[in-house]
Amino acid sequence: MKTLHDIGENTLLKMLLPTLPQNRGLVVGPGDDCAVIRIPGAKDDLLLTTDPVIEGRHFLPETPLPLVGRKAVSRAISDIAAMGGLPQYLLVNLVAPSSTPLSHIQALYRGIAQAARTFHLGIAGGDTAQGPILELHITAVGRIPRGQAILRSGAKCGNLLYVTGRLGGAYLPGSRRHLTFTPRVEAGRFLSRHRFATAMMDVSDGLATDLPRLLDASRKGIQLDLNAIPLSTAARRTTAPLHHALADGEDFELIFTISATRQKPFESAWARQFPRLAATQIGRILANPHQRNIPVGGYQHFQT
Amino acid sequence: MKTLHDIGENTLLKMLLPTLPQNRGLVVGPGDDCAVIRIPGAKDDLLLTTDPVIEGRHFLPETPLPLVGRKAVSRAISDIAAMGGLPQYLLVNLVAPSSTPLSHIQALYRGIAQAARTFHLGIAGGDTAQGPILELHITAVGRIPRGQAILRSGAKCGNLLYVTGRLGGAYLPGSRRHLTFTPRVEAGRFLSRHRFATAMMDVSDGLATDLPRLLDASRKGIQLDLNAIPLSTAARRTTAPLHHALADGEDFELIFTISATRQKPFESAWARQFPRLAATQIGRILANPHQRNIPVGGYQHFQT
Repeated sequence: MKTLHDIGENTLLKMLLPTLPQNRGLVVGPGDDCAVIRIPGAKDDLLLTTDPVIEGRHFLPETPLPLVGRKAVSRAISDIAAMGGLPQYLLVNLVAPSSTPLSHIQALYRGIAQAARTFHLGIAGGDTAQGPILELHITAVGRIPRGQAILRSGAKCGNLLYVTGRLGGAYLPGSRRHLTFTPRVEAGRFLSRHRFATAMMDVSDGLATDLPRLLDASRKGIQLDLNAIPLSTAARRTTAPLHHALADGEDFELIFTISATRQKPFESAWARQFPRLAATQIGRILANPHQRNIPVGGYQHFQT
Repeated sequence: MKTLHDIGENTLLKMLLPTLPQNRGLVVGPGDDCAVIRIPGAKDDLLLTTDPVIEGRHFLPETPLPLVGRKAVSRAISDIAAMGGLPQYLLVNLVAPSSTPLSHIQALYRGIAQAARTFHLGIAGGDTAQGPILELHITAVGRIPRGQAILRSGAKCGNLLYVTGRLGGAYLPGSRRHLTFTPRVEAGRFLSRHRFATAMMDVSDGLATDLPRLLDASRKGIQLDLNAIPLSTAARRTTAPLHHALADGEDFELIFTISATRQKPFESAWARQFPRLAATQIGRILANPHQRNIPVGGYQHFQT
């Protein structure tokens, strides 16, 4: 009897998605960072995403609860950033044992509220329910000018692949980056506003797991420049920095592709706009989807 | 040290909500059945809600999984119905142990897909994660003509209180109504389209818990006609049918208020439109919020 562990998240989603009904008005359905919904008459499209943050998977019982709240919000709005959108509202579902001290819940919501304020988000609703462990499920709603959402499927042959920031080691001892990262909302909006990016997604399960998802959606291959991959300080302290950069996950940086003809204007505009955030070219898109020099696998839910 | 069990869901929400940031464009925030979002230029407002369905709380390990999927979808769109809206899209978060047989997940999604098709909903996205028990968190997106959402806060002194269908016993042996109920989408839309209802909500935690929420939002009291409350067959088989009707919860019927001057046109229009669904008058709204003849308490999360 096959279990979720046997097949992993990728195969599960590939199996389930074709069985699910779609309907009109849905510009982008499951399989991208967000759903894109078109509202008749509106000049903006709507972006929708929902993300779980679960005790034992995304944080530990000893993780400071304000940081858990912050992470839950940041994960969800990182998906909005990955489409180039502006996050606006959150819905927050809380699951908790009834024995949870009230002060814990207050600490959790302090983190949620603070992250929401940082990004000018309104808490639009949510629900609470009893369960065996602490969980947050955050739905984020964002907007983007009609037709401007940057999808995973837009990479063209010859495009240059970039990544923001540095990768790897978000969970390593001494790093709390998986809790304290800043979702790349400004970078994503910059890339969509100037129409630099042809495809984009955020790196949540590690470059080695997420890049193939972008390539699959675009039906393309990649010549990755492994030496160019920017390594986090935490990863560089290990004996296998590149492995950590490829496989760890929870970086929440953006990967995106740019037409080679726009490389120069892009790089100078980026440097002016983001003097303290690197955008590093790490590869070039190939026409053949089977040509991919990606060395190792990253994180897949249900298989660890 | 106070726990969630000590204070219950109502007090928890009252404590947390004022600490959460709001922002512009949010017509209705937390505390109603759905959030209402206004999109510049759009002729419809957007309705958003998110609902958890958790093993051991909302279903049992032996519950047929297609019915669990159906229930999760139906619960979420019942909230859209409770605003008078048209449900359109779902996002589905799955939490499951990695040992879950694949066939179980397929059965679960068969139920989700079938319920979605019944109501012409598109599955817009979602996520999966590993956790100790099976859970679904469903976000539903709906629409309603701008400004027409029916809120909990609109009940006026002298309005008549109605309920659809029959109440109580959704969980009693022999009843599977908490799994097989039909969310009152058509009834809700009828009530908003003809502007009959001044206030509305769905009954998920029992009339004795939910009616005070509507009254609190409207700052009103109630003269409840206890003898008029329509009792389900399952409740009538017990020694305390009224108690079940007030306290059981998971009825997912609508309660709504109507101006007394419109009673006749409402009742005849209803009878024409819904010959097989009762709308029963069960009370009258009072000006004094302290005047409420509601006998017992219903279900409150974290306290059972």
